[in-house]
Amino acid sequence: MIDQIDSLMQERQLEAVIVVGPGQHNPPMVYLTGGAHLTDAMLVKLLNRPPVLFHRTMERDEAAKSGLDCRDLDAYRLEDLARRFGGDMLRAVRERNRLLLKDLGLEAGRAVVCGKIDAGTALAVYAGGSDEIPGPAFIGELGDSILQAAMETKEPAEIERIRSVGLKTTAVIGQAADFLSGHRSKNGLLVKSDGDPLTIGEVKRRMNLWLAERGLENPEGTIFAIGHDAGVPHSTGRDGDPLRLGQTIVLDMFPCEPGGGYYYDITRTWCLGFAPEEAEKLYADVLSVFQQVMQELRPGESCQSYQELACQLFRSKGHPTIQEAPNTTDGFVHSLGHGVGLYLHERPFFRLGSSQKQLLQPDSIVTVEPGLYYPERGLGVRLEDTCWIRPEGGAETLAPYPLDLVLPVTK
Amino acid sequence: MIDQIDSLMQERQLEAVIVVGPGQHNPPMVYLTGGAHLTDAMLVKLLNRPPVLFHRTMERDEAAKSGLDCRDLDAYRLEDLARRFGGDMLRAVRERNRLLLKDLGLEAGRAVVCGKIDAGTALAVYAGGSDEIPGPAFIGELGDSILQAAMETKEPAEIERIRSVGLKTTAVIGQAADFLSGHRSKNGLLVKSDGDPLTIGEVKRRMNLWLAERGLENPEGTIFAIGHDAGVPHSTGRDGDPLRLGQTIVLDMFPCEPGGGYYYDITRTWCLGFAPEEAEKLYADVLSVFQQVMQELRPGESCQSYQELACQLFRSKGHPTIQEAPNTTDGFVHSLGHGVGLYLHERPFFRLGSSQKQLLQPDSIVTVEPGLYYPERGLGVRLEDTCWIRPEGGAETLAPYPLDLVLPVTK
Repeated sequence: MIDQIDSLMQERQLEAVIVVGPGQHNPPMVYLTGGAHLTDAMLVKLLNRPPVLFHRTMERDEAAKSGLDCRDLDAYRLEDLARRFGGDMLRAVRERNRLLLKDLGLEAGRAVVCGKIDAGTALAVYAGGSDEIPGPAFIGELGDSILQAAMETKEPAEIERIRSVGLKTTAVIGQAADFLSGHRSKNGLLVKSDGDPLTIGEVKRRMNLWLAERGLENPEGTIFAIGHDAGVPHSTGRDGDPLRLGQTIVLDMFPCEPGGGYYYDITRTWCLGFAPEEAEKLYADVLSVFQQVMQELRPGESCQSYQELACQLFRSKGHPTIQEAPNTTDGFVHSLGHGVGLYLHERPFFRLGSSQKQLLQPDSIVTVEPGLYYPERGLGVRLEDTCWIRPEGGAETLAPYPLDLVLPVTK
Repeated sequence: MIDQIDSLMQERQLEAVIVVGPGQHNPPMVYLTGGAHLTDAMLVKLLNRPPVLFHRTMERDEAAKSGLDCRDLDAYRLEDLARRFGGDMLRAVRERNRLLLKDLGLEAGRAVVCGKIDAGTALAVYAGGSDEIPGPAFIGELGDSILQAAMETKEPAEIERIRSVGLKTTAVIGQAADFLSGHRSKNGLLVKSDGDPLTIGEVKRRMNLWLAERGLENPEGTIFAIGHDAGVPHSTGRDGDPLRLGQTIVLDMFPCEPGGGYYYDITRTWCLGFAPEEAEKLYADVLSVFQQVMQELRPGESCQSYQELACQLFRSKGHPTIQEAPNTTDGFVHSLGHGVGLYLHERPFFRLGSSQKQLLQPDSIVTVEPGLYYPERGLGVRLEDTCWIRPEGGAETLAPYPLDLVLPVTK
């Protein structure tokens, strides 16, 4: 939570957190500003001081919407600085940063830098600084960055925003189910009124529109994959593929609030018309692991232990897992889940082999997504919900939706 | 263009271009892969060699869609490396990168890094490397990075994709104009059939839906701002504002292909019902500068000279400009235009004071967007089109749309 940032800064011996980049689709900036239409901004949070937002002149009213202490980045005139350095724009940018940090009272110490920008820009502007130019040392963090640590636990308002995205998402899943069920089949394929096969691409386009109608963005697209593609976890599906009855279809949706706000993440697996026995069997195995893990989730337990539990359960049902066969593409081949927030994938991660024992935090939001994949047999089953880890114990699915495998279709 | 990359690498004495981050909404990765559903990938382009795409195992089929030489990133087992380094995941990632570059034959030299990722991750993984770990030196570039230089000139297929986004965007602008014109007015406000005022937010939601219906994404939102907000270039408009007749409305749209592909950028200024004299006057001034610049655009000229021309023309009409009054918020307060492609704002930039003389390239795609702003008087006018700089001379607007100021409404 945001109010943990100062204590995290103290723990990590940081004088400043510097967030760079645009105001949208940039989780650290959205987290601290609320998400404004800023093309290029810089937020500086000093230890035990409120954040200061530097913005372009022509974005002053957008910046003001944040309610933060806002200052004009263009007051530090880059053209003048570049002229002083013989036209060297990189040196001008570095000098501008030094000046504006100095104006905030920061002339030394450790300043962590974050925000979604070009990696080359980050290296050019913030690497190797302390030697050449006086000022704070710019620090990078991998993985468990300070803001990601703060973001891991959610305030009630954040939980309700994620739930709201979830309710809209499940409504779209319901529309998709009704849409598919409303079609008749011919020669084993779902067909439209003109008799032509309905395709993966047509259904995807409609789902995208239904998401837009509910005011959601879908920047990463939707996984809607059938047959062999359902057997490869991140294959998104081929637009031209028809919808064949009795094949497993994986539908994985992960839209977000407009401007790159909070995400939701949910997966259902469907068989149209009927499920063959081998699909039924995989589905039953995945459902049983899903339900068992959901019942076991509680704050304070090690995240890795749930991954181990899922692997053990799948193994006991006769499936290979990445625990004993790290490179397997059959069986349970990915991690059991991940945190969800302003990032689609964020802390905590339920993964094996992380030496830092990550414990499940109260008020974190995580997905549980066991799956089984047999691409060569054209089979994939995944079930996923996004859950709130309640402080008093237990995982609450934020937007429940039926888990049924078979989607009836008109004969 | 992509086929310039090797010669640009030679000029810049680079052994490798390394692109990191996701496969979507990441211009360098989209440029070189075509845009696939990759959550975290690494592309390595060695001098005079085709690019190699490293991907997660479960994204192997998505990676294969690129048609590139694809290799499994998970074959370099991070967990094993981390264990070797006492659980130090950062060191494991750096070592994995060293190993995979070594396997490509790259053990020294200069490797530029780019791609949209977290700035802190970029610093942690790529800064200060050459001292500690043997391997290539990782270089960052600001602004005129090698891929941005290549992207500056477009191939015919790229131009047609940008035009196609433009044609869909102008269709939506036409829908918005018809929608507004179809409303009647009451007490100087546009009202709905129930007599309640139509609001900025309602129109924006519809425009967003119309973009989605045409298969476009709108990750940065739309500027649809009236009155004072129209007088601040990047104010996006307040959802609750009514649409008052006779006020200037700035509509600036900049959607892109799904997954973060090519953008289009266009602005129109409208007055509903009638235009007061002062709005007419500003509009006439902006239109005249717009048309004069459009006529003058030709390859080989300095970009800065067009910004100077626009400032000079506006000054001669009695308006302040950022040339003689750098911090003005009245008059012509921003640059005349910018390149458009996989970035909404990319090379070339028509801006003052850049010491490097940037010349307008044949087959570049640029916006021309003069504007005049008087926020205290509640006035703002901007006109913008996206144009192809034809090699034989002249600027072709990719998706023409009428420039009219007054949008008639039902009495």
